[in-house]
Amino acid sequence: MIIDCHGHFTTAPAPHGEFRQAQLSRLEELASGSAADLPMPRPGAISDEAIRESVEANQLRLLRERGTDLTIFSPQASRMEHHVTDPATARAWARACNDLIYRVTTLFPGNFAGVAQLPQVPRGALADSVAELERCVTQLGFVGANVNPDPSGGYWSSPPVTDEYWFPLWEKMAELDVPAMIHVSTSVNPAVHTLGGHYLNADTTVFMQLVQGDLFGRFPGLRLVIPHGGGAVPYHWGRFHGLAQRMQRPPLAEHVMGNVFFDTCVYHQPGIDLLTSVISPDNVLFASEMLGAVRGVNPDSGADWDDTRVYLDKAPLDDEARAKVFEGNARRVYPRLAARLDG
Amino acid sequence: MIIDCHGHFTTAPAPHGEFRQAQLSRLEELASGSAADLPMPRPGAISDEAIRESVEANQLRLLRERGTDLTIFSPQASRMEHHVTDPATARAWARACNDLIYRVTTLFPGNFAGVAQLPQVPRGALADSVAELERCVTQLGFVGANVNPDPSGGYWSSPPVTDEYWFPLWEKMAELDVPAMIHVSTSVNPAVHTLGGHYLNADTTVFMQLVQGDLFGRFPGLRLVIPHGGGAVPYHWGRFHGLAQRMQRPPLAEHVMGNVFFDTCVYHQPGIDLLTSVISPDNVLFASEMLGAVRGVNPDSGADWDDTRVYLDKAPLDDEARAKVFEGNARRVYPRLAARLDG
Repeated sequence: MIIDCHGHFTTAPAPHGEFRQAQLSRLEELASGSAADLPMPRPGAISDEAIRESVEANQLRLLRERGTDLTIFSPQASRMEHHVTDPATARAWARACNDLIYRVTTLFPGNFAGVAQLPQVPRGALADSVAELERCVTQLGFVGANVNPDPSGGYWSSPPVTDEYWFPLWEKMAELDVPAMIHVSTSVNPAVHTLGGHYLNADTTVFMQLVQGDLFGRFPGLRLVIPHGGGAVPYHWGRFHGLAQRMQRPPLAEHVMGNVFFDTCVYHQPGIDLLTSVISPDNVLFASEMLGAVRGVNPDSGADWDDTRVYLDKAPLDDEARAKVFEGNARRVYPRLAARLDG
Repeated sequence: MIIDCHGHFTTAPAPHGEFRQAQLSRLEELASGSAADLPMPRPGAISDEAIRESVEANQLRLLRERGTDLTIFSPQASRMEHHVTDPATARAWARACNDLIYRVTTLFPGNFAGVAQLPQVPRGALADSVAELERCVTQLGFVGANVNPDPSGGYWSSPPVTDEYWFPLWEKMAELDVPAMIHVSTSVNPAVHTLGGHYLNADTTVFMQLVQGDLFGRFPGLRLVIPHGGGAVPYHWGRFHGLAQRMQRPPLAEHVMGNVFFDTCVYHQPGIDLLTSVISPDNVLFASEMLGAVRGVNPDSGADWDDTRVYLDKAPLDDEARAKVFEGNARRVYPRLAARLDG
């Protein structure tokens, strides 16, 4: 079995985007002072048929073509838009996004497992996020959540993930036994491109926060997945070892790597070869991010850039390691998925 | 001949740091309102002997031990501290730092060539930086400058390097025929570690700015060195190719890589192997960053983490490619250095 731990519903039917636009238009009108109050918009009706068509034409088609079995599926990351500061809007938007994911998982229960978007806002309290996480896991059968370490969208105004600000969320995740994927949303900073800058920077930044702090001393059961192949971290593995040593932190293997996992969203063979040779096969989870940042065909190879299975099949892994990367680690990191698969 | 394109004077004699402290203390006192005005401090006296001792015990000792011939040498990057907003303080600090580098290059003319620190301040006009660049190149014989794309120190409040805000500086660099190393300073953002986050993120961020914009269409002769092995870029080379394609930008080879160079500050063998196999040998410059971010010995290999020559000697490069990385590219990117070496 092959489990892809990182897919997004980037092709949601049009009424979903129209709902978001109505939310944003309402906030703009209120901010302009042209109205004292306005009713909250409601999500538009979306038929099962529309969801089925979108998924079958896109994610499910590719999943079948590439021989993957199941995608751990979450709302479009760049559209989480946690930089929008209104908590009620964030709550309604996360709920609508997660309800849509839930419907995908009920329409195709063998192919998709849900991961939640949280209603974070910049420097806001995390009670709403904890409540939505609990709803998604206990009522909708979700197996994890995306946590945005920078709700400001490229200005990094939140404290490090090791700060007590985040503890209510980590406590709930540990209690529910679900992992977090550390995933930022769109960059609203003109200096930092969302897909080619902010995503990779966030991966690197949070890894270093974990080296500096001691999050897993406090939450030994917490598991974090760092996407996009760990940002710059595996390429600079010597740098991080050397920095940890210079800062008199414990070795990375015991201090961080018992709880941190990198996905395989690295879109060329040398990158995947480096990832799988530098990082223990116990810490790598297969993923493609499809349909995500990079779509289209590599003209040199004729394969899709994000068809990471092609690279993994050629990577220097023995059968045992390959089985961990494709399936075993995902079962271990997402025990609620394992329970469902075995149930 | 082996040229190291990235070394910092991180071991400057004590009066240099005391001068900086006096500058900062003055600004603090003024900010607290306890004095209406205070005289600007002056750099303390430093003897040739003190400079010679510091360099011989540190950078020059390592340079000799490692068989490197010449280091392209600049002030300590993390202490540029461009986030300090007072322009007069920035001018005096950059001048003192550069004058010290100049003295190193006159005491050891065969071993060090100067690269300037610029008196940048967050979102400030660049006239002071242009003037200091001109002074360093035309009067002190410097061969390049470090340019900080984020003077705010981790909050990214400046426009991308492709914005016209930066044009006065790029015009002067093109006119003087000197390259810029893109190098941030300390992070004052508690979420982003200076050496393990901010430095690598800046490298990645600026590369993506160059993919998005068209800086070299406007300044075809401008050359930029992106340090720390290009941040996350070579590891994610497929992602950047795929993003450029999706964004309908020209291929990276013609759009960016005629003017951009990565150094070899990557502190383990697999990273250097990836860098030298993915990036053309025409675009890689040997560097160690010593004494920089990572000091100390890798307990597994017994070699210094930042002794990058060890990795380069083992990398899969033929003699011609190796000669480019160790010497030829540095002569091409820093023509004022080549003229001095050949003069």
